[in-house]
Amino acid sequence: MMIRNISVEGLDQIPIERQRIELVERKCLGHPDSLTDGIAESISRALSAAYLEECGTVLHHNTDQGEIVAGESRPKFGGGIIARPIYVLLSGRATKMFNGVDIPADTIAIEAARKYLRSVLPTLNLERDIVVDCRMGTGSTDLRDIFKSRDDCSLPRANDTSFGVGHAPFSETESIVKGVSAYLDETLRPKYPAIGQDVKIMGLRDGNTITLTLAVAMVDRYCSGLSEYIEIKDIVQERIEEVARKLTSRKVNVAVNTGDDYDRASIYLTVSGTSAEMGDDGSVGRGNRCNGLITPNRPMSMEATSGKNPINHIGKIYNLLATELAQECVAKVEGIEEIYIRLLSQIGNPIDHPHVASAQVLLKPGVGMKSVTPEIESIIDAGLENITSITERVIRGELATF
Amino acid sequence: MMIRNISVEGLDQIPIERQRIELVERKCLGHPDSLTDGIAESISRALSAAYLEECGTVLHHNTDQGEIVAGESRPKFGGGIIARPIYVLLSGRATKMFNGVDIPADTIAIEAARKYLRSVLPTLNLERDIVVDCRMGTGSTDLRDIFKSRDDCSLPRANDTSFGVGHAPFSETESIVKGVSAYLDETLRPKYPAIGQDVKIMGLRDGNTITLTLAVAMVDRYCSGLSEYIEIKDIVQERIEEVARKLTSRKVNVAVNTGDDYDRASIYLTVSGTSAEMGDDGSVGRGNRCNGLITPNRPMSMEATSGKNPINHIGKIYNLLATELAQECVAKVEGIEEIYIRLLSQIGNPIDHPHVASAQVLLKPGVGMKSVTPEIESIIDAGLENITSITERVIRGELATF
Amino acid sequence: MMIRNISVEGLDQIPIERQRIELVERKCLGHPDSLTDGIAESISRALSAAYLEECGTVLHHNTDQGEIVAGESRPKFGGGIIARPIYVLLSGRATKMFNGVDIPADTIAIEAARKYLRSVLPTLNLERDIVVDCRMGTGSTDLRDIFKSRDDCSLPRANDTSFGVGHAPFSETESIVKGVSAYLDETLRPKYPAIGQDVKIMGLRDGNTITLTLAVAMVDRYCSGLSEYIEIKDIVQERIEEVARKLTSRKVNVAVNTGDDYDRASIYLTVSGTSAEMGDDGSVGRGNRCNGLITPNRPMSMEATSGKNPINHIGKIYNLLATELAQECVAKVEGIEEIYIRLLSQIGNPIDHPHVASAQVLLKPGVGMKSVTPEIESIIDAGLENITSITERVIRGELATF
Amino acid sequence: MMIRNISVEGLDQIPIERQRIELVERKCLGHPDSLTDGIAESISRALSAAYLEECGTVLHHNTDQGEIVAGESRPKFGGGIIARPIYVLLSGRATKMFNGVDIPADTIAIEAARKYLRSVLPTLNLERDIVVDCRMGTGSTDLRDIFKSRDDCSLPRANDTSFGVGHAPFSETESIVKGVSAYLDETLRPKYPAIGQDVKIMGLRDGNTITLTLAVAMVDRYCSGLSEYIEIKDIVQERIEEVARKLTSRKVNVAVNTGDDYDRASIYLTVSGTSAEMGDDGSVGRGNRCNGLITPNRPMSMEATSGKNPINHIGKIYNLLATELAQECVAKVEGIEEIYIRLLSQIGNPIDHPHVASAQVLLKPGVGMKSVTPEIESIIDAGLENITSITERVIRGELATF
Repeated sequence: MMIRNISVEGLDQIPIERQRIELVERKCLGHPDSLTDGIAESISRALSAAYLEECGTVLHHNTDQGEIVAGESRPKFGGGIIARPIYVLLSGRATKMFNGVDIPADTIAIEAARKYLRSVLPTLNLERDIVVDCRMGTGSTDLRDIFKSRDDCSLPRANDTSFGVGHAPFSETESIVKGVSAYLDETLRPKYPAIGQDVKIMGLRDGNTITLTLAVAMVDRYCSGLSEYIEIKDIVQERIEEVARKLTSRKVNVAVNTGDDYDRASIYLTVSGTSAEMGDDGSVGRGNRCNGLITPNRPMSMEATSGKNPINHIGKIYNLLATELAQECVAKVEGIEEIYIRLLSQIGNPIDHPHVASAQVLLKPGVGMKSVTPEIESIIDAGLENITSITERVIRGELATF
Repeated sequence: MMIRNISVEGLDQIPIERQRIELVERKCLGHPDSLTDGIAESISRALSAAYLEECGTVLHHNTDQGEIVAGESRPKFGGGIIARPIYVLLSGRATKMFNGVDIPADTIAIEAARKYLRSVLPTLNLERDIVVDCRMGTGSTDLRDIFKSRDDCSLPRANDTSFGVGHAPFSETESIVKGVSAYLDETLRPKYPAIGQDVKIMGLRDGNTITLTLAVAMVDRYCSGLSEYIEIKDIVQERIEEVARKLTSRKVNVAVNTGDDYDRASIYLTVSGTSAEMGDDGSVGRGNRCNGLITPNRPMSMEATSGKNPINHIGKIYNLLATELAQECVAKVEGIEEIYIRLLSQIGNPIDHPHVASAQVLLKPGVGMKSVTPEIESIIDAGLENITSITERVIRGELATF
Repeated sequence: MMIRNISVEGLDQIPIERQRIELVERKCLGHPDSLTDGIAESISRALSAAYLEECGTVLHHNTDQGEIVAGESRPKFGGGIIARPIYVLLSGRATKMFNGVDIPADTIAIEAARKYLRSVLPTLNLERDIVVDCRMGTGSTDLRDIFKSRDDCSLPRANDTSFGVGHAPFSETESIVKGVSAYLDETLRPKYPAIGQDVKIMGLRDGNTITLTLAVAMVDRYCSGLSEYIEIKDIVQERIEEVARKLTSRKVNVAVNTGDDYDRASIYLTVSGTSAEMGDDGSVGRGNRCNGLITPNRPMSMEATSGKNPINHIGKIYNLLATELAQECVAKVEGIEEIYIRLLSQIGNPIDHPHVASAQVLLKPGVGMKSVTPEIESIIDAGLENITSITERVIRGELATF
Repeated sequence: MMIRNISVEGLDQIPIERQRIELVERKCLGHPDSLTDGIAESISRALSAAYLEECGTVLHHNTDQGEIVAGESRPKFGGGIIARPIYVLLSGRATKMFNGVDIPADTIAIEAARKYLRSVLPTLNLERDIVVDCRMGTGSTDLRDIFKSRDDCSLPRANDTSFGVGHAPFSETESIVKGVSAYLDETLRPKYPAIGQDVKIMGLRDGNTITLTLAVAMVDRYCSGLSEYIEIKDIVQERIEEVARKLTSRKVNVAVNTGDDYDRASIYLTVSGTSAEMGDDGSVGRGNRCNGLITPNRPMSMEATSGKNPINHIGKIYNLLATELAQECVAKVEGIEEIYIRLLSQIGNPIDHPHVASAQVLLKPGVGMKSVTPEIESIIDAGLENITSITERVIRGELATF
């Protein structure tokens, strides 16, 4: 068996927590970009399930495309209207015929998209306020061929020369942004349905001050008037501050819907809880990276993770795996301050044998590379050995991609 | 006048040229993602011109959206056919009515898109092989209001809390990838029209070996058969090697269309010179950053630069300005090995007063921060002072955005 | 008050029952053309209701447009799949803003269309097998103006120089075709759900032989195999013959799905019960006239009745009224063998004052024009006097339009 | 050889010229309904040509579908703008693959449609003011099979139980409407380009008075102001009267754009010469019958002639043939006042053997049926014998269909 090319290096840079400025962003589930990501991933999952059931194997597809074109709405306290529907274009491509078996990829895609929208945006009326259209193609013969040939070999081959990247651990600001997002979804919205699904959280740490700026789409039907709107904003602001303060000893400021101008009646009120209803388009791959965050201070991959096929698309598999490996290293290996893992593929090679798997490690004071390198190598090697576990968990919906 | 918050820090990290692995990618003009970027930017430019002519000022718009849905083609030597047209969806939003003046944003967008496609893909038959559709909205009232209020103040106000980032100088690998792209466009294609506009260049530096992997869409009508196809591939490979070697003393390998499999008649042949004809969709903002490259080893912004309004959209202006400032610093200030500039906005603030403008400098040996800091600060300050020059040059089409 | 221009003439032609050849067709509710008609009328009704509620009056709209683009299906006994969704384009135009009130015509249209489809095609999965898209416009200013000015006068003014036509009584063949359609919908399908909603009935009377040719889309999930398919065909054939024979003493032949070729496994099996799933597009106004039939032996109007506004669109109101008047004349006036009523409008005139209302009467033997003319004139005059009753009943959904 | 079932009967009814009211309408080439008809027929012709070239035979297709969704325009004297593009949806179905040969039906359709639009609407800017989209399907397997099997037999078999109808000669009013249309296209518009292509001509004969009501879309760029607009209207009115008077001794009134209201600045001004730019949608088959007219006083077929395949689609072939046969009878047989020809098919029968070919003849005074019947029978028989000439001339574009 071929030995994997794993490289572990020390990194000599200022740890993120000591850099002066740190910026972290998260687009929550109802943000138009996240909606497209979620739809794209739902479709890939539904297709994978259908392929497995009909053909015994996941066939070629990449649904990491698609666009949400915003509608036009007239929100008003107590409940307004959506005047022009949101338009969702499903594109990408998928195998529609295999060995004489038809797989109705287009209708599977529509069903998956509508089901996902229904689950994420319970406030949206799918019978009137949205159009889900589909122009999915079948892909080029070439790609499908490469995919098919996979059946003969033990492991799929990389679809491209590309790379994935991951880091661990989360910084305080990163943890706070993720924590706030989860808190909103799991705790606060169930109590206050006026809090829409479309929340954008921007975390800015300037030295020891963390400022969280939230843009929260409020749902008009659950808001009787301006005073209730302001009341809920205040609640969000207070609770988020509490949540954030539990996660840091730094100073925390929280600002909610700072663009509001009550005098001009300009507030962030929506009918459905998403800005897609009135002006914000969305595209797959333009929002969160696969760890759920946008982190300009960290290395990032430009690849959309959502919607790509989980069999051989490096842009999906390596980003997910690199993130997992980094987390595992931090959890299991003593002395790591920060770790960055990059997996670089070579088109046509089995995916468990990247061109190079590189770990860059920032050590805690007093720790030497020798004491961490073997364990890190071993974790990376095992992760690659077991790479199809990523595929399987993606298909089962156990791995978030945005 | 308020003093700008400019921070210049030393950076203590391994210079890019001494890191073991460096990855640089460029999607040339005919790549589906670049096509959408180019269309988005063309539309923004055409709208800006129309707004200026009709209303004396650039009105609110963001056309940084849109999707190319691939067609289906049957390439063959000597000239094949496109069986299903490429579908281009223009979305985003634009002001369509201002002070009683109609601005026909939809038809302006279609015209700009078709004109751009005609110029970039002369091999594409726009009368039959493409559909350019438009579902552009008008944006939310809020955003338009903020935009309008601009008239009263000296400078536009930031549309968001966001940031832009730029670096200089280009590494060898970066320079080579850009150089190769320019060489193809300016020198090689005019001689060999079989070389399509859709080229993806992946540069991988592993230590002192630079491997350039090119995926070149060949145009079937200019290719009489497989032997000519191979001949042109060889020419591309040889010439690119020559070009690259002039730019580095490192070892250079060039590989063209490595996925080709002559036995299975699987080659990268196209009718129109772009993979959009047969399986590759494209989205705005998923390809090159505004310096024309994808550079995972460098800090990157996830924001699409193309198509955003050039008046107050931080995701456009700050990325372009940060890149220019970094280049200017390297050109004018002695002793800089690498410089990274980040401009962080605060929503509602005048765009010439970022929340913080931060420069991180990696110095050449023997140089101290004191000797560079004042000059860098001064360059950044002047750049911000003069920030509307970015806007003006964008509108005139003098600044590339992808 | 102005006297109405009513003309009653004797007609000297061979009564329909004594002409050698008579052709009568009906496209039942699930036929693609009828589906578009039904959708168009549903939308007009939903808009009228919304206008009444929001503005106290029905505003300008004409939704007598729209297209069903067929999908692709793979029917099979026991239940097949729809591989490519049916695509429904809603077009036409409607007032979307009136006196500062937004009427969300686009989303109202989508909701009405989906609701109608759900009611007519319970076998169609609206969550996956259909796309309902909307590109409805707002109409030209002119037309809207004319419509608005209506508020000042007692009665709406004709939108066009156009005409409507109606006849009575139904011939035997006409009655049979309508009777068969009702029998299928009300009696047979509830017992045999395999009988799809898309039935085309062609009645040909050649002398004293009536041949009914039915194309019945069978629903695959309710059909276990070919023998059951044939069994149901036989049932349909037998029952229809029974029904028809009750309505005539002529010879009756019934043929069901004559194109079937069992040897080549070519039968009329569908997944959803409509041929729109696999090859038959539909358009508003290309199917039944407003009496529910296509009758080439009778004068017909080419105007689509469905979807037109019920306030001032002659193509809708005059066809419905002419048909009612003809029926009323036959019911109330002794001695009429056949009557044809034509109402000709003049653009801009109040709709109760047609340019001419002309009745052509074929009398029963021994009857003279003098004995019928006054009553006919009086019925027509009263019908015109009471013309807004048509409008009201259309809005309430009490008048069929196709 | 089988004898054809030809029936010639005398008809005992009031000749059209002596009926009191006669209504004749024509939608000229630029009317939205005619535009769709023209596009549909262009596509069928282009496909037929491609099939012949690639496969040696015309393959199954029916492109008698499609929709024009109106745009939005802001006409003004001297030249206005189209703000929202006209949207053209091509649908219908066509064979895209035959014996391993790809026929790019979608792109052929787009090219044909754009080319047709360019020729008919030279005033329309196809680069900006229109979107030509395509969702053409491939038809059901069944239909394609029947079509293929045609190769074995001498003549194609009828696609349906359906009928075609034609009459001759044209009445005075019919001749006038057609003559006026030709005069506008051939003589007047070349001199006065302000006269748009979208003209609707309504001819109403009430006794011995013929009123022609024309709705003429004026082209704004060729109209400097209201006085020129009125001047051109007057010219149209005068010239049309002259033309009409040459064709009749009856009283003629001509009214042009009667809806104009100068005080309210409500006139029929357009940017492109068609009302499709600002509010009028169009559908295939809703305008002129295949003789170029809508004639409610005459028997009419509801079938769209344009776009249907010219091989075996009865709705196309029989309408064209019946019209030709009627004209031929009138030209060659003495004593015919009016003739109505109906051709009734039987699905699956060779198209030259209709179920019945029926001629109804209104004789001139003093003429007996015996003296005309044999010649009429012979003309009909020869026409059926030579029915494929219809197909050939349709493909060559020699027969108008609307």
